[in-house]
Amino acid sequence: MLNKIDHIGIAVKSLEKAKEFYEKSLGLTPSPVEPVPSQMVTTVFFKIGDSKIEFLEGSSPESPITKFIEKKGEGIHHICYEVDDLEETLSELQKSGIQLIDKSPRVGAHGKKIAFIHPKSTNGILTELTEKDK
Amino acid sequence: MLNKIDHIGIAVKSLEKAKEFYEKSLGLTPSPVEPVPSQMVTTVFFKIGDSKIEFLEGSSPESPITKFIEKKGEGIHHICYEVDDLEETLSELQKSGIQLIDKSPRVGAHGKKIAFIHPKSTNGILTELTEKDK
Repeated sequence: MLNKIDHIGIAVKSLEKAKEFYEKSLGLTPSPVEPVPSQMVTTVFFKIGDSKIEFLEGSSPESPITKFIEKKGEGIHHICYEVDDLEETLSELQKSGIQLIDKSPRVGAHGKKIAFIHPKSTNGILTELTEKDK
Repeated sequence: MLNKIDHIGIAVKSLEKAKEFYEKSLGLTPSPVEPVPSQMVTTVFFKIGDSKIEFLEGSSPESPITKFIEKKGEGIHHICYEVDDLEETLSELQKSGIQLIDKSPRVGAHGKKIAFIHPKSTNGILTELTEKDK
């Protein structure tokens, strides 16, 4: 059902500061910085192997990322897995009693189809699914 | 320098409860449960694509995992990247001013060579490196 870890989302206070380790010490090339107004975040990605690390900075006090940092401090915010067919996966998960935040796909960063599973069903881990590019 | 995300470590109160979502709902097969007494944890892995998810349960009140959960709740504890030559990578990171928890490799789960980078140098993210099997 899951192809791979698509990315790991890391909540940070400052994208610029966060990029230091991955860009300067590890020599990785960041994606362009992209605002995602629908989620009140600004993001930057680093590709590592077949997966990515996504840094997220809240762009408003109401941003889920700003609230996460207030509560838990900077740190890993979510894991995103790639699936072949997102609608089918969501339907199967619902059938098996998994609680979904998004019952149908919505559009995330880079125009990709995404959906979040509720942490109640994943042992406190906010889990995102994204559909493979076709 | 980094080949891939080797695994993501998730701190949980109960390995059995944690396995539910990945095993029952996603249909993934867990590794055998393995105690790692040197780190006062018990672990189980799920393979996803080229990476793994590692659940960690503290086996003592002094376990770093037990303390992490007391402070932050259950959640993602560390990211581990695979490198080709761990000693060389550690030496390069030290030269670039990165603070290391382990200045030389030690033995982790499955007898692999591992080392931790200090979260101070990685924006609060506990980061592990492991050497590729030869």
